[in-house]
Amino acid sequence: MRRLRVIGIGAGDPDYVTVGAVRALNEVDVFLVLDKGPATADLTAARRAVCERFVEGEYRFVELADPERDRDPASVAAADRYTRAVDDWRTDRAVLLQRAIETEVPDGGTGGFLVWGDPSLYDGTIRVLEEIAAAGELDIEWDVVPGITAVQALTARHGVLLNRVGGAVHLTTGRRLAQEFPPNADDVVVMLDSDLVCRRYTDLDLTIFWGAYLGTADELLVAGKLADVVDEIAAVRAAARERKGWVMDTYLLRRP
Amino acid sequence: MRRLRVIGIGAGDPDYVTVGAVRALNEVDVFLVLDKGPATADLTAARRAVCERFVEGEYRFVELADPERDRDPASVAAADRYTRAVDDWRTDRAVLLQRAIETEVPDGGTGGFLVWGDPSLYDGTIRVLEEIAAAGELDIEWDVVPGITAVQALTARHGVLLNRVGGAVHLTTGRRLAQEFPPNADDVVVMLDSDLVCRRYTDLDLTIFWGAYLGTADELLVAGKLADVVDEIAAVRAAARERKGWVMDTYLLRRP
Ligand SMILES: C[S@@+](CC[C@H](N)C(=O)[O-])C[C@H]1O[C@@H](n2cnc3c(N)ncnc32)[C@H](O)[C@@H]1O
Ligand SMILES: C[S@@+](CC[C@H](N)C(=O)[O-])C[C@H]1O[C@@H](n2cnc3c(N)ncnc32)[C@H](O)[C@@H]1O
Repeated sequence: MRRLRVIGIGAGDPDYVTVGAVRALNEVDVFLVLDKGPATADLTAARRAVCERFVEGEYRFVELADPERDRDPASVAAADRYTRAVDDWRTDRAVLLQRAIETEVPDGGTGGFLVWGDPSLYDGTIRVLEEIAAAGELDIEWDVVPGITAVQALTARHGVLLNRVGGAVHLTTGRRLAQEFPPNADDVVVMLDSDLVCRRYTDLDLTIFWGAYLGTADELLVAGKLADVVDEIAAVRAAARERKGWVMDTYLLRRP
Repeated sequence: MRRLRVIGIGAGDPDYVTVGAVRALNEVDVFLVLDKGPATADLTAARRAVCERFVEGEYRFVELADPERDRDPASVAAADRYTRAVDDWRTDRAVLLQRAIETEVPDGGTGGFLVWGDPSLYDGTIRVLEEIAAAGELDIEWDVVPGITAVQALTARHGVLLNRVGGAVHLTTGRRLAQEFPPNADDVVVMLDSDLVCRRYTDLDLTIFWGAYLGTADELLVAGKLADVVDEIAAVRAAARERKGWVMDTYLLRRP
């Protein structure tokens, strides 16, 4: 039996790490890190920094190469093909991760996953573990330690509320926002948007609270009427991506 | 000038307190606590416990009586009257709080608000501070330290994801859920529901992940097909409320 801890480390600032996460980090024998894309090196370095700062005893840190994800634009365009592409990739990931758990985590030992933000929000770790457990070849048991999401980081850094009194909040992706502006929430949070899709809703009189690299030394914040600031955000965002090679941003759109 | 720190302490477990919150707690001269309702005594005790555990130096802890909130059922029924009732209450609250800040926090000193969960989510502290700042009678400056919400506590304790791959998540209240089941999200989180309003959607083939007193010694968790477990949840919930005098619960409804 191998014990696995899925530990949310917060979205950016090492100060977002919780006391419970610090305890969990110190119970881990080996950290398994699986990332991909242009931000990988930086995010892995951030995870290493968290371990260096908070772990007192010995530990190992294993970086795994992520199986190449199907990024074919045709499959990205078609929603169901997209889901299929993600599924294939997930299965490869599950196979890779199962092998890594088996070889890197000693029987009776504890493996740790350092998840950016909170493990429940737009993260694949829990899903992969469910898949490994369902396959039934390896005896694993896991728990989840919650973390501060990019959404909390965004509202805290802007000093604003997420919701209006008694109001609803809709969390969505750039892809979905491109289809429709959610009609049933006054506050809409957008993640995973590589195109600043909100630009097409400048006629809705929205206020935007935008943040990139939240909680880090590179943090960027812009707020204002969407129509007034969207060009500034686009410019700031493009310059930052140019400089760092990647950008990670989240925004809140608020109806009048 | 008085500095104020709005500190999210997480929704239940003192282990949810972040390293940044611990630092912020230690920079506060006086904590101002404003609660109301049947859970007040317990929530205040939980805040005191957080201070006792994490604050190393001297501090003061001031409990303020919350102005009576208009709970007239007629006003609760009518949505706009409800907003007005909340507004009146908020203004009373702002007046009370401004006075408390002025008398309890020394000029040049730091006051602290210990907010349950995260300060951005269904909490009135930031709004009241905005109101005090807008009134312009007292010179205040504040920042926000994010905290683990009841939503993160719920998903972590159930070990589940909040969203489906690329899916949207809708956060709403019992009051709004009573009007409509959000059509545009596969995952719906409900807070502030005193009636288990989800009962009316048993025909939608939903799965529910329900949690009460999350992160505390009294924690209750139930998960399953809504139609199968809703009676069990209602019974568990009623018994808990009977025993403790109050209940605080959150749930996730997931479409098939
Ligand atoms: C794969 S999701 C992971 C979310 C993470 N699990 C969380 O709880 O925040 C990545 C998305 O999260 C958002 N994000 C994560 N960290 C961020 C940060 N530090 N600043 C701005 N956005 C961030 C961006 O929208 C990005 O596209
Ligand atoms: C006034 S709101 C405060 C929310 C808080 N700021 C947060 O971030 O979770 C109170 C509602 O939060 C939810 N809640 C807060 N703490 C909880 C807990 N420990 N267990 C279950 N639900 C909780 C319940 O839905 C409750 O009605």
